[in-house]
Amino acid sequence: MMRAAGKKKLAISGFQFSGISAGIKKSGDKDLALIYSEVPAVIAAMFTTNHVKAAPVKISIKQLALSRQCQAIIVNSGNANACTGRHGVKDARDAITGTARLLGISPRLVHASSTGIIGERLPVKKLLTALPVLVNRLSPFSLHDAAHAIMTTDTFPKIAAANLMIGGRTGTIAGIAKGSGMICPNMATMLCYFVTDIAVRQNALSHALRNAVRVSFNRLTVDNEMSTNDSVMIMANGALKNVPLITTSRDYKKFQDALSGLADTLAGMIARDGEGATRMVDIIVRGARTETGAERAAKAVAGSMLVKTAIYGGDPNWGRIMSALGSSGVKFNEQRVDIYFKNIKMVSRGTATDRREQAARVLKDRQVVITIDLGMGTKMAKVRSCDLTEDYIKINAHYTT
Amino acid sequence: MMRAAGKKKLAISGFQFSGISAGIKKSGDKDLALIYSEVPAVIAAMFTTNHVKAAPVKISIKQLALSRQCQAIIVNSGNANACTGRHGVKDARDAITGTARLLGISPRLVHASSTGIIGERLPVKKLLTALPVLVNRLSPFSLHDAAHAIMTTDTFPKIAAANLMIGGRTGTIAGIAKGSGMICPNMATMLCYFVTDIAVRQNALSHALRNAVRVSFNRLTVDNEMSTNDSVMIMANGALKNVPLITTSRDYKKFQDALSGLADTLAGMIARDGEGATRMVDIIVRGARTETGAERAAKAVAGSMLVKTAIYGGDPNWGRIMSALGSSGVKFNEQRVDIYFKNIKMVSRGTATDRREQAARVLKDRQVVITIDLGMGTKMAKVRSCDLTEDYIKINAHYTT
Repeated sequence: MMRAAGKKKLAISGFQFSGISAGIKKSGDKDLALIYSEVPAVIAAMFTTNHVKAAPVKISIKQLALSRQCQAIIVNSGNANACTGRHGVKDARDAITGTARLLGISPRLVHASSTGIIGERLPVKKLLTALPVLVNRLSPFSLHDAAHAIMTTDTFPKIAAANLMIGGRTGTIAGIAKGSGMICPNMATMLCYFVTDIAVRQNALSHALRNAVRVSFNRLTVDNEMSTNDSVMIMANGALKNVPLITTSRDYKKFQDALSGLADTLAGMIARDGEGATRMVDIIVRGARTETGAERAAKAVAGSMLVKTAIYGGDPNWGRIMSALGSSGVKFNEQRVDIYFKNIKMVSRGTATDRREQAARVLKDRQVVITIDLGMGTKMAKVRSCDLTEDYIKINAHYTT
Repeated sequence: MMRAAGKKKLAISGFQFSGISAGIKKSGDKDLALIYSEVPAVIAAMFTTNHVKAAPVKISIKQLALSRQCQAIIVNSGNANACTGRHGVKDARDAITGTARLLGISPRLVHASSTGIIGERLPVKKLLTALPVLVNRLSPFSLHDAAHAIMTTDTFPKIAAANLMIGGRTGTIAGIAKGSGMICPNMATMLCYFVTDIAVRQNALSHALRNAVRVSFNRLTVDNEMSTNDSVMIMANGALKNVPLITTSRDYKKFQDALSGLADTLAGMIARDGEGATRMVDIIVRGARTETGAERAAKAVAGSMLVKTAIYGGDPNWGRIMSALGSSGVKFNEQRVDIYFKNIKMVSRGTATDRREQAARVLKDRQVVITIDLGMGTKMAKVRSCDLTEDYIKINAHYTT
C-alpha cells in the first residue's frame, strides 16, 4: 500500500502543483512552489513551538483561527522571512494577496511558508514577478517540481504517497517535505505538505495529523528544538466524494495509519539527508516504564554529540550511550540495561560483553540501529538521527556567506 | 589578589601533591595524582547529576554521608571507572585502601576520582603498583604535576590560586581542574580540586562551593548535561590557624569571592581548551526578568550547534541566535531584542543594523563576546562556550579506538 513516488507521474484528484526559480536563491535553483486545490479544501496544520516565529507562520496561525479552509499554499525557499519585523509580515501578506489575485480566490484561502536564511528581508518583488509563471505552470503532475522548489540544503527532493481504499474507492495521500539540517540539535527547519482527495472532517484531519507528527517528525528533532519556520500542513479536498471521515469512521484508522506511515517515510528521508551525515541512525529504547520515558531516553542518546561522533568514527562506544541515558532524567537501573548494535549485544546487564569487534563491524552499515533495553517495563519509542561529521561543520560554518 | 599560577612554585601550608605515570594511559603521559593534607581537612564536594555515576563518585557520596573530613584524594585519568558494575566499585575501593595504607591513615579519609573512557575496567593493578612511587613523590611544590596527571584531552594543565588576608594573616586558596570536552553539549567531564589553608566550618565551606560552582562550572556545561564522573571538591585544612569561618564571619564574603573568582578562572581555562575550539565565546544575556531566565536563554544560545559553527565560520549570523533564544522557553518580545558582537550593535529592536562587516571583523578575535539585551528587565547571566570545528569531530570520532 505504501510506496515512495517512482518514475510514474503522481496525481491526486483535484490538486495541481508548480515549482520554479524566482531568483531568490543565488544559485538559480528552484525556490518557489505552489500547491493548489481546484476547490476549497479542509486544512489542518502544526507549526514550530519556537517563541520566535517567522512572518508567514504568524499569519497562518491567525488565519487558521478564522477559517479551516484553504485552496493554495505558496512556499519559497532561500529566505526564511523570520526576524524581519513588520516588513516581513507585509512581504508575506503581499505574497498571499498576489497569489490569491492570480488564482481568483480569497486571500483567506491562501497560506504562505518560507525557509532559508533568517533575519534578511524576503525579496518579495522577485517573488511577485515570478508569480504569473508559477501559476501558469500549475499541473496535476508537477508535485516533483514543488518538492524540488522547497529544498534548501537538502540533496534530494522528498516525496511519498499511498493509495488506500475508502468506501470502495481508491483515495490517495501524497506528501512532500524538506529538511536536512534539522536532524541535529538546534538544526530544526522542516516543511511538510500533505494533500489528499479523501474527504475528512476538519477535527478528524487535525487529530490524524497530530498523531502522525508525534511519532515521526517530533521524534526526529532532537531536544524538541524547532526553528522559526517549521510547518506541517495537510489539505483534504474531498474529490474522492466519500462520506467525510470522522474519528469514529470505520475507515479512519486506515487513513491515520497511512498518514502516519507517510510521515514516518518522509522523516526517514530527512534523516538520510542529514547535513554531512554518512549514516542514518535509529535509536530504539524499549523496556521503559512509559512511552514518554522511552522517547526522552531515546532523544538524549540520539542528540548526544559524543554518540553521533562515535558512530561516525565506527566506534561502538556504549559508555557514551549510557552517559547520555543517565543525563536524560529518566530513572533506570544501570545493572539492567542491555545495549544492541543491530543484533549484536554489546552490553548485558550494564557491563560490556566481549563483542566489540562485531559491533564495530555493524557500524559500517549506512543504516545503524541501536537498541537499548532498559529492563524496567514494556514501553518503547524510536527516534531517528544521523552521525555528526566534519562536513556538517563545513556546511554550517559558511551558510550565509 | 587573584592570579594564575606562574613559574614560581606554589605551596599551600600543610598540603602536598604528586603526579606520575602509572601506565593507565597508553601514551605514557602522567595519569595518577595525589592530593594530601598533613592533617585531616574539612571537605565539601559536588558531583555529577547524571543518573549513571562512576564507581568512585558513588563511593564518595556514601563516604561524605558518614564523614566530612578528608586527608587525601587519589585521582586517575585514562579510565573513568564508570559503567563497570560491582568490579568497578571494588577497584575504586582497592585504590582507596591502598592509598590509605601507604599514607597510614583511615580509608574513610581518602576519596577517589577517575576520568577517561567509560565502560572499561580500571587497570587497578597498574594503579596499585604505582602507588608507592606516587606517595614517595609527594611534595608541597608539586601541584603542577597533579594538575598534569588529571588531564585527558586537555592541551594544558589548569591551575589558579589566590592569596587573601584572613584575620591579619595571608591565607591561600589553590585549585586545579581538568576538562576540555565538556564545553560542548553532552561533553561533560570535568574534575576540579580546591585546597586551602584557611580554616572554614563545613557548612560554610559547602555553601561557598555551591555558590562558586553555580556561577562558573554550571554556566559552562551547556544543557546541564553532566558526565558520569564530574566532581568538584574543596579541602580546608586550617593550617592558617584563623578562627574557622562561618557564613556570618566578617571575612566569609572575601573567601566566597576569592573561591568564586578561582572557579571562574578555571572555567575560563576549560572554555579556552574546548576540544577543537578556535575561539572562546562568552554569551551574555542581560535585560532579562530573572537571573534564571537570563541563564536559560544564554545556555540555549551557547549550546546551539548552529551558533557555534557560525562563529567558527566568522559569520555574525544573528538569526541563529534569535532562533536559539526562541527555543529556550524564555518569553520575550522579539522587537525589543538588541544583539551585540563585542561592541558592534548588529541587531536593534529585533532587526538587523547595517553593521554586518564590522561584526564579522570582531568574530576574528580569539575571544568572542556576544551580548543579548532582551529589553525586559534588569537581570543578567554569562555562559561560557566555544566554537565548533572539524577538529572537535576528529577528536571525538576516534577517542577509544
